[in-house]
Amino acid sequence: MIKFHVEKGTHSNYIYKQIYEKLKGFILDHKIDAGSKLPSKRQLANELAVSINSVATAYDQLLAEGFIYTIERKGYFVEDIATFISNRPPKKQKLPGHLEETYTDKEGWLSLSHIKTDSSKFPFQEWIKCQQQAIKYHKKDLSEITHPQGPFTVRKTISEMIALTRGVTCEPEQIVIGSGAQPLINQLMAMQPTDTRTAVENPGYSRVFQLLKNLKFEVLPIELDEEGIDIREVKASSPNFLFVTPSHQFPTGTIMPISRRVELLNWAAMAKDRYIIEDDYDSEFKYGTDNIPSLQSLDHNQSVVYIGTFSKTLLPSFRISYMVLPPKLLELYRYHYSDWIQGSNSLHLYTLHYFIKSGEYDKHIKRMSQHYKQKRKQLVAELRSKFLDKVDINDIPAGLHFLAEFNTEKSFEEIYEKVQQEKLEIYTMKRFLLENEVRNSNKIQLVIGFASIKREKIAEAVDRLYRVIC
Amino acid sequence: MIKFHVEKGTHSNYIYKQIYEKLKGFILDHKIDAGSKLPSKRQLANELAVSINSVATAYDQLLAEGFIYTIERKGYFVEDIATFISNRPPKKQKLPGHLEETYTDKEGWLSLSHIKTDSSKFPFQEWIKCQQQAIKYHKKDLSEITHPQGPFTVRKTISEMIALTRGVTCEPEQIVIGSGAQPLINQLMAMQPTDTRTAVENPGYSRVFQLLKNLKFEVLPIELDEEGIDIREVKASSPNFLFVTPSHQFPTGTIMPISRRVELLNWAAMAKDRYIIEDDYDSEFKYGTDNIPSLQSLDHNQSVVYIGTFSKTLLPSFRISYMVLPPKLLELYRYHYSDWIQGSNSLHLYTLHYFIKSGEYDKHIKRMSQHYKQKRKQLVAELRSKFLDKVDINDIPAGLHFLAEFNTEKSFEEIYEKVQQEKLEIYTMKRFLLENEVRNSNKIQLVIGFASIKREKIAEAVDRLYRVIC
Repeated sequence: MIKFHVEKGTHSNYIYKQIYEKLKGFILDHKIDAGSKLPSKRQLANELAVSINSVATAYDQLLAEGFIYTIERKGYFVEDIATFISNRPPKKQKLPGHLEETYTDKEGWLSLSHIKTDSSKFPFQEWIKCQQQAIKYHKKDLSEITHPQGPFTVRKTISEMIALTRGVTCEPEQIVIGSGAQPLINQLMAMQPTDTRTAVENPGYSRVFQLLKNLKFEVLPIELDEEGIDIREVKASSPNFLFVTPSHQFPTGTIMPISRRVELLNWAAMAKDRYIIEDDYDSEFKYGTDNIPSLQSLDHNQSVVYIGTFSKTLLPSFRISYMVLPPKLLELYRYHYSDWIQGSNSLHLYTLHYFIKSGEYDKHIKRMSQHYKQKRKQLVAELRSKFLDKVDINDIPAGLHFLAEFNTEKSFEEIYEKVQQEKLEIYTMKRFLLENEVRNSNKIQLVIGFASIKREKIAEAVDRLYRVIC
Repeated sequence: MIKFHVEKGTHSNYIYKQIYEKLKGFILDHKIDAGSKLPSKRQLANELAVSINSVATAYDQLLAEGFIYTIERKGYFVEDIATFISNRPPKKQKLPGHLEETYTDKEGWLSLSHIKTDSSKFPFQEWIKCQQQAIKYHKKDLSEITHPQGPFTVRKTISEMIALTRGVTCEPEQIVIGSGAQPLINQLMAMQPTDTRTAVENPGYSRVFQLLKNLKFEVLPIELDEEGIDIREVKASSPNFLFVTPSHQFPTGTIMPISRRVELLNWAAMAKDRYIIEDDYDSEFKYGTDNIPSLQSLDHNQSVVYIGTFSKTLLPSFRISYMVLPPKLLELYRYHYSDWIQGSNSLHLYTLHYFIKSGEYDKHIKRMSQHYKQKRKQLVAELRSKFLDKVDINDIPAGLHFLAEFNTEKSFEEIYEKVQQEKLEIYTMKRFLLENEVRNSNKIQLVIGFASIKREKIAEAVDRLYRVIC
């Protein structure tokens, strides 16, 4: 039997751990032969001058892990364990350099990103009050996983809300809650046959384009005209699933007029299994008019899948979106995802339920609308006064971003480099052009978000942008 | 021009809405011809005896939605809008009966489900305190989406924790946070080639089995012996991805001994691109011994993907899990999911970060371990005293469930029917047998969870179970 000693510490665990680790090492390294008998607990305790308890705990742990076995009245024996075939290099290896993450210090940066919202105005206290209610009334629900589509109560609240605000007609059964348009579209499309043809707006939401390509579907990017997606191209390419943003085209900002909406719905109604996916990502913010009813509200053929989100109205980091499935797709969904576990935190979803029910959600949108409206107005004015005739703003009073075209000879790459220097977060059109990156050589389009920038920083951001462009 | 009148209400919006809705209806139904001139705002206001403002708002809204257009100094004209080709049945249709959700009143039910945990003991107040810290220190982070794998800070905290508790060696870069083992495995496997061969434990986690089948991979269910997954079958079938639960086999409860672990790792090391997915779903709860180091901790070939979760230690409804990718799979992940948006709420993830950092997480596990240990002991004792030699309990003191075999002639279907009558939530082995549902005709196995049942209800639950079985 191999000899070792243990260091005495103050904590009894400390001694047991050493005995366990030593014996484990000896056994794995085959320094004690398989089948050998270990000293009795008392014997080893005496040898090491430790309590018999420490040895017993170590033996129990080794037993539980299968390093040793016991024969009644005979004692403890070493298990027969194979040798590791690898040459066992040091386990802790440095991660290859290209996989290391680098931290970019964003101190001093200003953001005109279209993705961000303003978290400084979020009513966290009211949110937490609603969370208290969720805990109080749904504690039992929190001990289990919920319905694959999300808790019924929450879906009911959402369905009532969108009936009112978006004219969407649906039952709670038709709602699927998910953590964003991306995973919802992923679920929806993963159950479609591989020969499904899809089409998206170009320029458009590049993440969806990429997602559809990753899913190995044919994806047709369709050009836009001044009314939104080009209906002639839609008819010519005739996809099974058409992805559009009629409330506020992303990123151009076009609000699809009723004539184009009717044309699209008529196109969808003309054949079986044609679906329009309406991504209503920021419809809650209209500064000049009332909300504009959704495309789904005009559809009588159950051919529209409506996708809504709380990313713009609450916070993008909250990750709550939902889709409304027509019965036929719902049936397919139920078949495919009966085993699926809803990925959103139920506590969070019930909190949202109370936030809507209490009227806080509505109040928050109204407050933020005013706030965003002012920021938008100021930013547009500052851009015009700074750039004069060098800027052409697509001035549609909706959403959390607008498109602006600047006179400049600079390339996308030069712009990208300059914004880094100026510490200005902003996206160029390049990101949203899905293919055929042609651009007028002396113009460049930028997608300008105004949700995150503070009012007192707008002038400074425009100055930086001026240095970038001119 | 068509005539109509509006009802006078107290709210000015009420009047504008009526004008808007009426004109919209007339235009969509082609009761006003395309190209016709609408009356001027003043004229219509006079006709309807309403304020000119109400008409102006209605015209603006119709303009924004594209029902009408305006020619400067000439007035407002009706757009040319196609007729809907469908025969426009009533939009609100009843959902087909088979798609309606039925509500099961669980009042009076007792649960021996293995999925549930005990939410009554969850320290919500401490959790909320940590949430306050998350809001205080990360408010700005909440205004944007986070890294596809989750916030670095949170991944760092998790990596430090699992190094300590599970012996897992990894950098924060290697951690991918997701809303459960299911979506994480979905991401991991969706980037593998279609000819990838997978193997799972049988009986095992049926959701993963189903997921792999949905992804169209070959899935081999591999039998278990008393040490866990049958190593000879593993060697014979030689999959690329092998899914195991070594800490506490699901559902049998077997703790894989070191000898089998070495054999598995040796098998994986013997060929390129062989991976073992270690689903460590409830390893935090060991009642007789210390935690047992993970399989990943023994691996020196970067062939183990470790999956951990907070579903058992916190609440299943919180939906926070993570996987640790070996560098090669991480590289593939980065390539495939650079555009992916992390689906977990960042507020929630930062809250978890403070919950771990403050020591509350550790305290909570210790508290729950004691609590679950007592419930487990009591339930095992009550089962034995009630069923005597009619029950054989696989008495491994770990996790939140155990397997028990009962002498009974009843079929799975009869058992299922009886538990409904007795209002007892419990799962039979049928759910976890992935194929070849053979069973000894006079024995039936049940997976018995003890996390959710209250101590004072254990006797009653055992009584109900007795009536179910005997």
